[in-house]
Amino acid sequence: MVDIATRVYNHKWKIDPIVRSLIDTDFYKLLMCQSVFRNKPDTTVTFSLINRTTRIPLANLIDEGELREQLDHIRTLRLTRGESTWLRGNTFYGKRQMFRPDFMEWFEALQLPPYHLERVGDQYELTFEGKWPEVMLWEIPALAVLMELRSRATLAHMGRFELQVLYARAMTKLWEKVERLQRIDGLRIADFGTRRRHSFLWQDWCVQAMNEGLGNAFAGTSNCLIAKNLDLEAIGTNAHELPMVYAALAETDEALSRAPYDVLSDWHEEHSGNLRIILPDTYGTEGFLSRAPDWLTQWTGIRIDSGDPARGAEVAIRWWQSRGEDPREKLVIFSDGLDVDKMAALHAQFSGRVRVSFGWGTLLTNDFRGLVADDALAPFSLVCKAVAANGRPTVKLSDNPEKAMGPEAEIARYKRVFGVGEQERVEVVV
Amino acid sequence: MVDIATRVYNHKWKIDPIVRSLIDTDFYKLLMCQSVFRNKPDTTVTFSLINRTTRIPLANLIDEGELREQLDHIRTLRLTRGESTWLRGNTFYGKRQMFRPDFMEWFEALQLPPYHLERVGDQYELTFEGKWPEVMLWEIPALAVLMELRSRATLAHMGRFELQVLYARAMTKLWEKVERLQRIDGLRIADFGTRRRHSFLWQDWCVQAMNEGLGNAFAGTSNCLIAKNLDLEAIGTNAHELPMVYAALAETDEALSRAPYDVLSDWHEEHSGNLRIILPDTYGTEGFLSRAPDWLTQWTGIRIDSGDPARGAEVAIRWWQSRGEDPREKLVIFSDGLDVDKMAALHAQFSGRVRVSFGWGTLLTNDFRGLVADDALAPFSLVCKAVAANGRPTVKLSDNPEKAMGPEAEIARYKRVFGVGEQERVEVVV
Repeated sequence: MVDIATRVYNHKWKIDPIVRSLIDTDFYKLLMCQSVFRNKPDTTVTFSLINRTTRIPLANLIDEGELREQLDHIRTLRLTRGESTWLRGNTFYGKRQMFRPDFMEWFEALQLPPYHLERVGDQYELTFEGKWPEVMLWEIPALAVLMELRSRATLAHMGRFELQVLYARAMTKLWEKVERLQRIDGLRIADFGTRRRHSFLWQDWCVQAMNEGLGNAFAGTSNCLIAKNLDLEAIGTNAHELPMVYAALAETDEALSRAPYDVLSDWHEEHSGNLRIILPDTYGTEGFLSRAPDWLTQWTGIRIDSGDPARGAEVAIRWWQSRGEDPREKLVIFSDGLDVDKMAALHAQFSGRVRVSFGWGTLLTNDFRGLVADDALAPFSLVCKAVAANGRPTVKLSDNPEKAMGPEAEIARYKRVFGVGEQERVEVVV
Repeated sequence: MVDIATRVYNHKWKIDPIVRSLIDTDFYKLLMCQSVFRNKPDTTVTFSLINRTTRIPLANLIDEGELREQLDHIRTLRLTRGESTWLRGNTFYGKRQMFRPDFMEWFEALQLPPYHLERVGDQYELTFEGKWPEVMLWEIPALAVLMELRSRATLAHMGRFELQVLYARAMTKLWEKVERLQRIDGLRIADFGTRRRHSFLWQDWCVQAMNEGLGNAFAGTSNCLIAKNLDLEAIGTNAHELPMVYAALAETDEALSRAPYDVLSDWHEEHSGNLRIILPDTYGTEGFLSRAPDWLTQWTGIRIDSGDPARGAEVAIRWWQSRGEDPREKLVIFSDGLDVDKMAALHAQFSGRVRVSFGWGTLLTNDFRGLVADDALAPFSLVCKAVAANGRPTVKLSDNPEKAMGPEAEIARYKRVFGVGEQERVEVVV
């Protein structure tokens, strides 16, 4: 087992690059990438880093040279033979050859496209422009690099024992969460914490701790590299970028209103079973569900990723009931801003009424809150989103106006097209 | 830095002997050994293990074969060239050549004498008989072996992450103590925790944590091996075994009453300055001080090792005052059952009135209380004492009848000779 504190103290960053592999990314990115590679390979998309926690002056904390070095390092990565073998030969969600040969050939030859980095005030403007299947693979490594460089900036000033005790405290804190999770009967939980992890080594430790502590209740990790190394299930389905880009490409309001369903129609052709998970909140959950075609009611579940999660789950349950489905056979995956208390409450409220599952992210892999002075290691809300497709801006509304993004006029248009009215504001912590 | 949890998990005990060196012992043992080597070399002394915490069934917890293996290993140890060089060349308490050439030659040739081990009920009877200077060096390693084998017995059943989190919690616990100690202005503290340590690796970690956390407030460690390895001060003066053996050898009541002063008279000839520390409680502090010869009032300080420590310090202060000494120039060393609260209170009460110093033992190097089920790693009260000298039983009264030892008739005789009346009982935890 790696002694993280000693490794950090020695801070041989050169031999500890932040992103070590093209599959040090979320599994759903690869699933979506394959889908995009088939359905929209020539779309030009721009991804952009957005620090929602503006009080954290990333450009003051992180040296631009070091940031470039890490990003450049990622551009040197190629899929290794072992990684390719794993993707081609492993079983994902019970299915062999999840990744088609044409996609794997393309992936084996892939180098991530160039990035554009500029300092603007106290923040970095970091954008990636290119063919959608290539450029989308920047999102997770870019976030992981920024998050970990910010951790390293704080850790660099700490002594050897301070570091040992810092990690001892973080381990104790996580293990106490694991012990509390052990007491939730019928729990089902996966690691979704790659993008905003404290560091790679720390995520790796957290996943091992969850695996040892929770046994079968631990469903796996969204991180492909860690899943491969530890022989765990790789977990994940699809994300907002699909409807956001499909919507941006829509030429008319009518096409726009259909775009979210077009996404799932393409997905429907490719995937079955537990991979058929609806992410309904991109342009408002209630409108999305009420207008959804009947074939969507057959899908396995719904992922709740914004707004009040209990409210979202109740909406989902009512929707299934209204369409003659039995919610007890359906899966609700909670994945937004979770911690143990919230999971325990949601599990108590919904267990038995639906199948409940959790995708635990930032507060699994980056809960260093309260562990150093000025809370300089507390996680914050950094995202990397598709902001344009073929030159047209993307829009996200979500079930929480705090998470909305896009040009104001476009937001207004989308609200009109999707019939989104007043929304409840929920503070975004992570 | 050693990753203790991983080392423990791998439990390659064969390559991790508990006692790795003849100087993995308390510094005062070597000082006393040199004194005994000069003044009483031919005395035959018996040391015996005494488990005061009888509810801990050592013989059920610890395999006899493993115990023999560890003890046999200690008998294979010889002073190494580097250790000899360090003892001969290093400065101790500001003095060069603390150890005389004749003593060093003897020590370099030393092999520890045989041991006698027998299982009696749930406990082990472990005794060492031989020439005093040889046999006395068994005390500390014998205790360290029993303590660590008991730890290992519990650790052997634990999983990899349980161990990581156990040590993470223990580290956090100790560091929180260090942080509280940092706030005590003018603190002076040393590690006295060799004999009842959780393990060698753990003591080593604790000493490093104290050193990094407390800086100059950390005076050093009683453990010679750790002092040598980490380039710290080796700390310690003398212990009860000197007056206990001198007293046992006394032929008459009159000689008996003089014995404790004879010990210090021999010590007075050998040592000066901060090594002149009175340990007054062997046969009752108050009587010892009231009958003490005037030259003892010149000594640097008093070590309080039993009874209520605040009361002991007040007695010492009054004694110095009654003999015309300024207590503010005197040193009081507290060394009995200390933890942070007690040290903070004693420091607050006596700082400014005397020079205060702490010898922190078991709750520095073995505070695993509350960290595993059934508190199976909580420290307990194990001692190894000189029980006979030249065939005559030894007696210890101390300032706490819970710590008294010896045959009943002899205890009564000693109480009469030393005028010890009613004593306050204080629970002995460690």
